[in-house]
Amino acid sequence: MKNVNASIITIGDELLIGQVIDTNSSWIAQQLNNTGVSVKRRVAVGDSAEEIIKALDEEGNASDIILMTGGLGPTSDDITKNVLCDYFGGKMVVNEGALENVKYLFEKVFKRPVSEVNLKQAEVPNVCEVIQNRRGSAPGMIFYKDNKIYVSMPGVPYEMQGIIEESVIPLIKEKFELPAIIHRTILTAGIGESALAEIIQDFEKSLPKEIKLAYLPSYGMVRLRLSTIVSDQEKQGKNIDVYFEQLKILTKDYLVTDVDDALPVVIGKLLKSKNKTVSTAESCTGGYIAHLITTIPGSSKYYNGSIISYSNNIKETLLGVKENTLNTYGAVSEETAIEMLKGLLSKLNTDYGVAVSGIMGPDGGTVGKPVGTVWMAVGNKENYQTQRINLRFKRERNIEVTAMMALNFLRKFIVAS
Amino acid sequence: MKNVNASIITIGDELLIGQVIDTNSSWIAQQLNNTGVSVKRRVAVGDSAEEIIKALDEEGNASDIILMTGGLGPTSDDITKNVLCDYFGGKMVVNEGALENVKYLFEKVFKRPVSEVNLKQAEVPNVCEVIQNRRGSAPGMIFYKDNKIYVSMPGVPYEMQGIIEESVIPLIKEKFELPAIIHRTILTAGIGESALAEIIQDFEKSLPKEIKLAYLPSYGMVRLRLSTIVSDQEKQGKNIDVYFEQLKILTKDYLVTDVDDALPVVIGKLLKSKNKTVSTAESCTGGYIAHLITTIPGSSKYYNGSIISYSNNIKETLLGVKENTLNTYGAVSEETAIEMLKGLLSKLNTDYGVAVSGIMGPDGGTVGKPVGTVWMAVGNKENYQTQRINLRFKRERNIEVTAMMALNFLRKFIVAS
Repeated sequence: MKNVNASIITIGDELLIGQVIDTNSSWIAQQLNNTGVSVKRRVAVGDSAEEIIKALDEEGNASDIILMTGGLGPTSDDITKNVLCDYFGGKMVVNEGALENVKYLFEKVFKRPVSEVNLKQAEVPNVCEVIQNRRGSAPGMIFYKDNKIYVSMPGVPYEMQGIIEESVIPLIKEKFELPAIIHRTILTAGIGESALAEIIQDFEKSLPKEIKLAYLPSYGMVRLRLSTIVSDQEKQGKNIDVYFEQLKILTKDYLVTDVDDALPVVIGKLLKSKNKTVSTAESCTGGYIAHLITTIPGSSKYYNGSIISYSNNIKETLLGVKENTLNTYGAVSEETAIEMLKGLLSKLNTDYGVAVSGIMGPDGGTVGKPVGTVWMAVGNKENYQTQRINLRFKRERNIEVTAMMALNFLRKFIVAS
Repeated sequence: MKNVNASIITIGDELLIGQVIDTNSSWIAQQLNNTGVSVKRRVAVGDSAEEIIKALDEEGNASDIILMTGGLGPTSDDITKNVLCDYFGGKMVVNEGALENVKYLFEKVFKRPVSEVNLKQAEVPNVCEVIQNRRGSAPGMIFYKDNKIYVSMPGVPYEMQGIIEESVIPLIKEKFELPAIIHRTILTAGIGESALAEIIQDFEKSLPKEIKLAYLPSYGMVRLRLSTIVSDQEKQGKNIDVYFEQLKILTKDYLVTDVDDALPVVIGKLLKSKNKTVSTAESCTGGYIAHLITTIPGSSKYYNGSIISYSNNIKETLLGVKENTLNTYGAVSEETAIEMLKGLLSKLNTDYGVAVSGIMGPDGGTVGKPVGTVWMAVGNKENYQTQRINLRFKRERNIEVTAMMALNFLRKFIVAS
């Protein structure tokens, strides 16, 4: 079976000046991968006809499927549609379905009068197949050339995602014979990339050519992924599972999960399986731990709430940390973290709790407690554990890493209790 | 003056399967832009020699500066260094500075024994200039070819950022004569991209060719940016300011700020100027509003804390919402939002407060209160205001948009009070 390749082209000046982070490309890559399409390249270009055409030429040569996002808005800096019209040799015509959609959206959903500029969005090249966009006013467009498929979509993630899920993936499945790509992923914590590499170096050398191993470090954890392109689902599925079992045994001391779940999902599953609840008391992480937990659908089943005690005053009044403790040991101390935890468990009445206090920077550090010093406590009504960590990043990353380390500390406590 | 162009190449299989979001590219693009370098293209390729070489060829043709990240780790899937060594015709040698750095990091910072694999990271092609990486074990490398500069950096954001700030930007300033790029940005809220476009369409037509206007929508707000490449700083600075003043007048009803600040920064500046404090009571946003506020350095000056009342029980016990209110009107209601706000202001004793309760999905919606229904209240001890919003996104985006809209609601209340 021939490998089916795709390129992703994201279009917009905002991508080249760094004003936005491109989340579309990775989302699209995930969907394609799950469908059995290999993404070969991702390219970002500005709102420039010359650059868009160059990218279309290059990616058309490299891949079977070329997916584009961006530059379809109603304003004059958006030129993608006209460039595509010229490139594929068409002329602009009004699409009745798109016109109805624009009118419907403005009347019923946005509840604003529809303008000339908006109506223009219903115009498309007469050489494309239109994909109606039920979530916005710019339609998607499919072009065919030299056995390649080109799809242009709006850059608004929510609109693009609807078009991909409802139209592009079904189209790809219809037009191409696709292999399955099998991934097996473990998440490890408490060990660095290179130390992991040493542990599994013999294993890695023993892997057959068709099974690839990738190290994916993030937030002080490392994901290890085995993947293989499959023509014979059953045989190769069995094969990769044999290696996967070996990998799990080799890394068992650091293993967080052997499914491709994020840490907050792992904790959610654990708590649901034990029918237990958790709450958080956050100082330096300022609600980020709570956010990570509550991003997971259904988290209200096991998460009750949080007290964000950013000021010392709140630590005292809401969590019952003693003034004396704060004065003697400071807000960033083992003693304060323990009192925060105890106050939390009594106030929010959950089975487990996690409390965090630290200095995220750029200011607030001292010689004894430099920026990056964090004390955290996890526990239930019977027991607790504490740990001090020392980070050396910038504020935003310090917050993110602290939150992930606190969640992993919580996970280990739940597993052991 | 000749325009100086750059391409950014990010390397790694993980970028092509969508397992990570590429934040490096946008950060690098920002730094280059601020330095007066125009980013022409961004390309992401896998850990494949063929693809890396193709990208080097293409981007070497397109740009003066080629910045690469990724593929420099100690594990066998990282091949960038060897590919570069072949591409630029060198051979691998141990760099003494890099070797010392690896040893120092493991002994003093990581406090782990240094391994063979790690020591390998001190090997570099003998045709590059080494940039010592003070934050990690993989050094940066500079190659020169046909008057182009190629820089290879590790993909770990924190390490890459150090190398860019300390070495790459100074190098670029030394090697190229650079124009300034001037940006003027306003942030608007409460109006869509196309409605804004209608308001400023005459203005947009009147802009001289050298001043570009971009629309940058995000989270229900739209940023408008004027930019120009400047050879005569004083003259063109004055010119863009004339148009910028016109733009501010045209959009005054929707103007949030006329500097390039994010909304939480705008609110922080407002509160500091008034010497006031704020706290939050969050249900559906689960700490995300608190996170947005506390990501800003120095936010402890004006932010006291938050009560995340995810369960109704916490709404009652910690915020004093009446059981009767919850039973009669429901957790997502104007009445509950108001009682959450009043409880918050009395418990956390801040000047301002914001309370939010809603249904983020995918479950929990009803006919009268579908997923995306949110009630929010803002106020101080004398007054309050409420609003209902109806979103139609997926859970994660519903949370983000709700948080931004709550912050903007808060901002307007502070400005008016």
